[in-house]
Amino acid sequence: MARIVMKFGGTSMAGMERIRNVAARVKHVVSQGNEVAVVVSAMAGETDRLVGFCKEASPLYDAAEYDVVVASGEQVTSGLLAMTLKAMGVEARSWLGWQLPIRTVEAHAKARVSTIETDDLLAAMASGQVAVIPGFQGMMDDGRVSTLGRGGSDTSAVAVAAAIKADRCDIYTDVDGVYTTDPRIVARARKLDLVTYEEMLELASVGAKVLQTRSVGLAMKEGVRVQVLSSFDDPTQEDLPGTLIVSEEEIEDSKMERQLITGIAHDKNEAKIIVTRVPDKPGAVASIFGPLADAAINVDMIIQNDSKDSEETDVTFTVPRADLARSVDILEALKETIGFRRIITDAEVAKISVVGVGMRSHAGVAATMFKTLADRGINIEAISTSEIKVSVLIDEDETELAVRVLHTAYGLDAPAA
Amino acid sequence: MARIVMKFGGTSMAGMERIRNVAARVKHVVSQGNEVAVVVSAMAGETDRLVGFCKEASPLYDAAEYDVVVASGEQVTSGLLAMTLKAMGVEARSWLGWQLPIRTVEAHAKARVSTIETDDLLAAMASGQVAVIPGFQGMMDDGRVSTLGRGGSDTSAVAVAAAIKADRCDIYTDVDGVYTTDPRIVARARKLDLVTYEEMLELASVGAKVLQTRSVGLAMKEGVRVQVLSSFDDPTQEDLPGTLIVSEEEIEDSKMERQLITGIAHDKNEAKIIVTRVPDKPGAVASIFGPLADAAINVDMIIQNDSKDSEETDVTFTVPRADLARSVDILEALKETIGFRRIITDAEVAKISVVGVGMRSHAGVAATMFKTLADRGINIEAISTSEIKVSVLIDEDETELAVRVLHTAYGLDAPAA
Repeated sequence: MARIVMKFGGTSMAGMERIRNVAARVKHVVSQGNEVAVVVSAMAGETDRLVGFCKEASPLYDAAEYDVVVASGEQVTSGLLAMTLKAMGVEARSWLGWQLPIRTVEAHAKARVSTIETDDLLAAMASGQVAVIPGFQGMMDDGRVSTLGRGGSDTSAVAVAAAIKADRCDIYTDVDGVYTTDPRIVARARKLDLVTYEEMLELASVGAKVLQTRSVGLAMKEGVRVQVLSSFDDPTQEDLPGTLIVSEEEIEDSKMERQLITGIAHDKNEAKIIVTRVPDKPGAVASIFGPLADAAINVDMIIQNDSKDSEETDVTFTVPRADLARSVDILEALKETIGFRRIITDAEVAKISVVGVGMRSHAGVAATMFKTLADRGINIEAISTSEIKVSVLIDEDETELAVRVLHTAYGLDAPAA
Repeated sequence: MARIVMKFGGTSMAGMERIRNVAARVKHVVSQGNEVAVVVSAMAGETDRLVGFCKEASPLYDAAEYDVVVASGEQVTSGLLAMTLKAMGVEARSWLGWQLPIRTVEAHAKARVSTIETDDLLAAMASGQVAVIPGFQGMMDDGRVSTLGRGGSDTSAVAVAAAIKADRCDIYTDVDGVYTTDPRIVARARKLDLVTYEEMLELASVGAKVLQTRSVGLAMKEGVRVQVLSSFDDPTQEDLPGTLIVSEEEIEDSKMERQLITGIAHDKNEAKIIVTRVPDKPGAVASIFGPLADAAINVDMIIQNDSKDSEETDVTFTVPRADLARSVDILEALKETIGFRRIITDAEVAKISVVGVGMRSHAGVAATMFKTLADRGINIEAISTSEIKVSVLIDEDETELAVRVLHTAYGLDAPAA
């Protein structure tokens, strides 16, 4: 017997026929003797509909009332799933965010879970009752409804799993796991059986979106074992072939042989900015990035070409494409203060990342990347590295080519069928 | 300054444009220096949509989860109205059923309000904040969501008005008040300025549906002054020409001259059953009505023609048309026990009622009714009376004719324009 959290997204909850499929899946897991809590999203499209009303009410809508409105979508699906389970003979009840409660802090519409009361919940689960919990929602200390921000149901599921010390948090999505790269680009991409939290974070944040990044960070912090599964597979199948996201230690303990590199990610959502002829003196760089940070613009890669024989330097960095125009406006307004010559922008770039915890103990990962790309004539415009990731910025048109040649170069291609 | 509850139904809340109209109306009442609580229904059609999901989940859906699902409709509109008011510069916040809380008892899906906590609510209202309260919903003692049954938002509004000792409870509907009779039948029907609770109950229960009957009963019990208004009139108009529903004492104190008769109601939802040749002995009548009551069939008019020179009697009564077939089945099954000869049914009947507290002190109201109908050749099939009402059962085809001639006979016709 295990204690399991099952999380279903909006596509899985879109209409009663799908909710019945979800209930059948839950019933199967219960029938195997497990204690189950289910976390559900709103029906696909419902949150957009509710957000649309709020925007129509006022472009500057009140965030506390926004939470009251949009939290209703998950309330509906949690009630519907609980009654469907009961109709199938499975004991169940819904627990709304304020009923547990799931306490949250910080701001409305982007709240963070602080604590979850679990006494009543665990007692009900121990008695054999499935707990159905609406994702996305919680309650502020003042007793008002809060929500966690779009996609927050993944985070709700992980937070519940941490609070009840679940053996596993199964996230059912419309993909059947985490792949070595985007299968739409590389037909021979392989599904990963195991991936570490750190790798998942790097893969998610550079474009391989399966889980909300925040939920992975929370799972890592709380040590929650997360499994990504397809909600469209046969629920009675014994070994669901998902991807398990766990700590590096657990993978090491499992003695499974692992690849040096876990996956190749790509991200077309960045744009490059070059600020030329910035005075090469203390504080000059801060005068660029300080104002961008103040405007909540998330600067990613930064390269400063500091040629020692000049008193000026070019500063290159990337920002989210959506923030490109705003970034340029901010910098142009500060042209005299900063003292640069001009700004060159390029929105048609892509960031390609090679990710894997194995690279910590192996030299040559970056060198292989650079040589592989150079052999195909792909120009590298910027480089950044972390302990488990090497990223390069290239021309957007070469994205797919780069992903494919790297996938092959690191030995990630699945054997031919 | 007064303390006013304003209640808006689903038609008034259907979409942001109408919610903005509601907000403008609330703003106007606030600007006159009043303390305001607003009770709202779900958007028109939304509760039906949610009930549809529940029925799809299971014909025997769990009532507690049904409440979780359907209560969401009012949660959405209360949040949207509060944020719209704030966007218009009016301080406001939503108070969900569990936040006040509005405590309810008895059964899920048909709960009854027991108490409403008002300390926080009154403090907020005293500080100038409009309280927006979702109708229809409350909370059981075990902390679960409850609802009051369809149309329950009128009752919520009256219950809130009673709890905060409001000076008035204004119910905005798609009609502009209570009329002497159905204006679709009598073009010269007049809108009533005043009507007593008792009259309103009789008018509502016999077909002139403007308010949920239960809300009128609660208003009478709690002494809440209710005003029925149109939500489509100009909100800035000084004297909104609604109908005020108050106690008989208040009307007497106001020294307003009143008509003898307040209104003429009709009801086509009954069917007549004649059980012939029932043994005229103690317990015979009970053997008919006991089983019907056990089946929750609401018997209305009852006439027993007890001819002293026979040992058998015919019993005539009416039941809701929807229950006619079931009633006959129940009685036929008991034919031997009861000992009647046969059952004659007629679904094509109408009940016409003359209502007015004035008839208490005036004889001749019933006589006028019988003579007026007889003069037009309308046959009376049954009669029942209460202190403030005389009802007759007639052929359904003669409904409109009967209403028109009675409206004229009692001097209710408006002066010709």
